[in-house]
Amino acid sequence: MSVDPFLKAALDEARQGYAEGGIPIGSVLVKAGRIIGRGHNRRVQQGDPMAHAEIDCLRAAGRIGSYAGAVLYSTLMPCYLCSGAVVQFGIRKVYAGESKTFAGGAEFMRGQGVEVVDWADEECVALMRRFIAEKPELWNEDIGR
Amino acid sequence: MSVDPFLKAALDEARQGYAEGGIPIGSVLVKAGRIIGRGHNRRVQQGDPMAHAEIDCLRAAGRIGSYAGAVLYSTLMPCYLCSGAVVQFGIRKVYAGESKTFAGGAEFMRGQGVEVVDWADEECVALMRRFIAEKPELWNEDIGR
Repeated sequence: MSVDPFLKAALDEARQGYAEGGIPIGSVLVKAGRIIGRGHNRRVQQGDPMAHAEIDCLRAAGRIGSYAGAVLYSTLMPCYLCSGAVVQFGIRKVYAGESKTFAGGAEFMRGQGVEVVDWADEECVALMRRFIAEKPELWNEDIGR
Repeated sequence: MSVDPFLKAALDEARQGYAEGGIPIGSVLVKAGRIIGRGHNRRVQQGDPMAHAEIDCLRAAGRIGSYAGAVLYSTLMPCYLCSGAVVQFGIRKVYAGESKTFAGGAEFMRGQGVEVVDWADEECVALMRRFIAEKPELWNEDIGR
């Protein structure tokens, strides 16, 4: 059960992506206790290979200036693209819904001093497992395999 | 003097960005000897903090499937965001116009087995130096300082 409201918001984004026929990964950016950006993977919807959930979310947040104090939530451990965004823009805390289905760039981020929390949320795991079983080629495309 | 035609194309993109009042960094993606994507930084133009030159270029290239054999050119050494894209999507070769004004993620990419060539191109250096001197706050914003 997802109790954290921000993880739930990210999961709502992921489910919206799934309903759109896309890759069900969602993300929200939180600063000072409120969501300042939200998004989901739109590779399929926009034909944009860079529109990973976290990138879509950070794009939606816009030019916020400093990311100090901001926390990036994602239903899935961020990949290297999204981990690179975290490191480059100085986001110091990442909450990932799960990393069972994809290890992502957790170790890279931690090596750069980012606090990475893995929630091992079963709802997040179940959504990704369903998607990967249904559309393995799309999933492989999205992570460059 | 930039003799490589693909680096020249990236520099043309960078100059277009400068003319638009933006951050003058350009990029092209080359596969099988031809440009399949091109772009430039559009943080200012689109209000999009994720629209680094390389991301804009990879977005423009679209869903190409495999990046095997593709070479990413950029007028400036890719930052961690863009280096993360390179690593995640399996781009194995990066040609950077220069790294004097910004070291970027060169070592990270090399550590992941990417061949990174630094051209130390004086035109690329001059354009970045001019921009950084004119708009230092904008440059710092773009790299998360």
